[in-house]
Amino acid sequence: MRVLLTGFEPFGGEQINPSWLAVQRVPELLPDLDIVCHQLPTVFGAALQELRVAIEDHHPQVVICTGQAGGRVSISLERVAINLMDARIPDNAGQQPLDEAIFEDAPSAYFTTLPIKRLRQRLAREGIPAEISYSAGTFVCNNVFYGLMHDLQLHFPGVIGGFVHVPYLPEQVASRGWEPSMSLSTIVKALAVLAEECSKNPEDIAASGGNIC
Amino acid sequence: MRVLLTGFEPFGGEQINPSWLAVQRVPELLPDLDIVCHQLPTVFGAALQELRVAIEDHHPQVVICTGQAGGRVSISLERVAINLMDARIPDNAGQQPLDEAIFEDAPSAYFTTLPIKRLRQRLAREGIPAEISYSAGTFVCNNVFYGLMHDLQLHFPGVIGGFVHVPYLPEQVASRGWEPSMSLSTIVKALAVLAEECSKNPEDIAASGGNIC
Amino acid sequence: MRVLLTGFEPFGGEQINPSWLAVQRVPELLPDLDIVCHQLPTVFGAALQELRVAIEDHHPQVVICTGQAGGRVSISLERVAINLMDARIPDNAGQQPLDEAIFEDAPSAYFTTLPIKRLRQRLAREGIPAEISYSAGTFVCNNVFYGLMHDLQLHFPGVIGGFVHVPYLPEQVASRGWEPSMSLSTIVKALAVLAEECSKNPEDIAASGGNIC
Amino acid sequence: MRVLLTGFEPFGGEQINPSWLAVQRVPELLPDLDIVCHQLPTVFGAALQELRVAIEDHHPQVVICTGQAGGRVSISLERVAINLMDARIPDNAGQQPLDEAIFEDAPSAYFTTLPIKRLRQRLAREGIPAEISYSAGTFVCNNVFYGLMHDLQLHFPGVIGGFVHVPYLPEQVASRGWEPSMSLSTIVKALAVLAEECSKNPEDIAASGGNIC
Repeated sequence: MRVLLTGFEPFGGEQINPSWLAVQRVPELLPDLDIVCHQLPTVFGAALQELRVAIEDHHPQVVICTGQAGGRVSISLERVAINLMDARIPDNAGQQPLDEAIFEDAPSAYFTTLPIKRLRQRLAREGIPAEISYSAGTFVCNNVFYGLMHDLQLHFPGVIGGFVHVPYLPEQVASRGWEPSMSLSTIVKALAVLAEECSKNPEDIAASGGNIC
Repeated sequence: MRVLLTGFEPFGGEQINPSWLAVQRVPELLPDLDIVCHQLPTVFGAALQELRVAIEDHHPQVVICTGQAGGRVSISLERVAINLMDARIPDNAGQQPLDEAIFEDAPSAYFTTLPIKRLRQRLAREGIPAEISYSAGTFVCNNVFYGLMHDLQLHFPGVIGGFVHVPYLPEQVASRGWEPSMSLSTIVKALAVLAEECSKNPEDIAASGGNIC
Repeated sequence: MRVLLTGFEPFGGEQINPSWLAVQRVPELLPDLDIVCHQLPTVFGAALQELRVAIEDHHPQVVICTGQAGGRVSISLERVAINLMDARIPDNAGQQPLDEAIFEDAPSAYFTTLPIKRLRQRLAREGIPAEISYSAGTFVCNNVFYGLMHDLQLHFPGVIGGFVHVPYLPEQVASRGWEPSMSLSTIVKALAVLAEECSKNPEDIAASGGNIC
Repeated sequence: MRVLLTGFEPFGGEQINPSWLAVQRVPELLPDLDIVCHQLPTVFGAALQELRVAIEDHHPQVVICTGQAGGRVSISLERVAINLMDARIPDNAGQQPLDEAIFEDAPSAYFTTLPIKRLRQRLAREGIPAEISYSAGTFVCNNVFYGLMHDLQLHFPGVIGGFVHVPYLPEQVASRGWEPSMSLSTIVKALAVLAEECSKNPEDIAASGGNIC
């Protein structure tokens, strides 16, 4: 059972990206699990191509991509990837697509195949704040999430995958006292819990977790 | 050019629903427009059936469904409807579906066909706070939004439609001073602007409006 | 029974200030009440001097000063004025005091003498969201609030007074869909309710209204 | 140079209080500093009496009291203690004072004598989110803060003191994914930085840190 974990390079003027900092530290928490870590560029298209190569190279059974969600307070288990690119800022290659489909003639959306309700329950038990999110945005995170689910659906039957957003680290907001953050050790532990649970219990449970709006 | 506007009956313990209160007042602001107003029950499935009958009866060219989004601060132009029902509370008929598809063998999501970026720009010019939203939740609002787009796609070519969430009214939160609201007159004006703009300028514009996450 | 209402001129790059726009419209709602309206400059010191002159000129029994509180969602009944100026931005005369007392050898703080718990209850009954606030900031609003209470204490025994913060108007945030606002008509109605209630029932009630933190 | 650090026992249905959990761990980070830790009961009056005894017993030159501020995102350096008890919930002895002064014939407020702007700057440099707060609430935290400043002013000239609010720990909000938190290790580090800085650099700096409102 191999798990592929990805994180992003910094973007939007930040010097670090908590997703990649956290991903790198997961293997040491899970010595008995076969975990491969890979950093993706924060670039539309290029990130997807790198992800595809990593999946082909490593043959994981579980793929968990992660990204930074500035302003969120907890681990966000993303449920829906949409076939849309609509960038509010340029990506790291200067691209800023507006209202474009990721793939023509492809589904409008994919749902995660990670057992997100079980994962949220497990995280809560471990003392880690988590929520189910119904939007991964329209930037490179959603691009990778959508492309991942599209590839898994078409080319890698049986492999489960999804996307997890993580908050800012405290040091990213230290001079702005009004923004929420989460410590790196909590994020690393969260990702380790997710990797382990997905490996051992890939079936989801029935549990409340929807939003009124 | 006929516009069908719908709002919901109260739910979740509320005595009123701002969406229906507002919808009823739109025609008096737009005497030259042909507007039909219809209240939908806050009930999975039943709301959709009523909506379908209303479309068949009135033959609108534009359908704008509206609902209450407690906690939001501005007019939310919903972009994505997902094929999922996941109710955190029971609907008005006591149903509480968990993790169920709305329609089997149907697309995972639909995008609005209202010109939401033009609409947001027009609302801003009129002094009305508005945002583009990428999740209409997983309750009856999303149910109606998804069902609307599915029906329009399959049975009513050329009719455009979408969903708009509106904040609480001040009186709904008057005893809880920490929750945002919007006055009925502002919501009514917003819906009138939307109805008029959709009738006259159904083509969207290219404008930034995405989310990082 | 005369009520003096004050509002501020615009500041911080805004073209309007909802406090003054609202204050001017209160008299027409209360034709039987003797209400004097006065605009204050958003300038440390000068605002206070103008307020003092207005009190001397008009001999009110109730003084309610109002100001704009961008970011707040409801009518804020301020409870505490502190003897401190600490400006994050320059005032309209370019002054930016840091960590200075308003008056030397004066109390560190004053409490409002308006019946704020009764007022909050009355606003709630009228369907207007309101809260009791324990900080009026450290800018010109707090400067006027503190100076008012100091003057009333020293020179105008029997006159009650206090400060009320009001949210942004919708048009101030129309292009930023994520900020809360309140319509002018709701703010005007709120101020009319406050003026009337202070005139007729100046005694406060015992009611819960504190904050844990 | 001795520093007295206090934290509170749990209250309001919580099983733990991050303030006391953090305080206990500070000495091990600062082996060269003389630090005394003391837990206070979350009880109006009794907390103050215990604090006074602790100050008399230990003769600190710096007193930093800490408490839990659920809902806040960063370390809050409290600037103002007010002479008011107004409890929204009962304290741990069942007392729920409404609109009562802490001490009759005492100042309406005290300002902290900790160098809070220097402290905020130092915390930011250490990568720890912090803000200056102008309200410590009206519950037992403010009660202790006010009583501390009153005692220091009257009986312990030269001793500096103040109050610091800390966020929830992640485990306290783990099942509510929408509430902010801060890890224990970050809070411990923050308190250690504060204790060290107050010991070594008790003079404050001039720096912006006020609020508009």
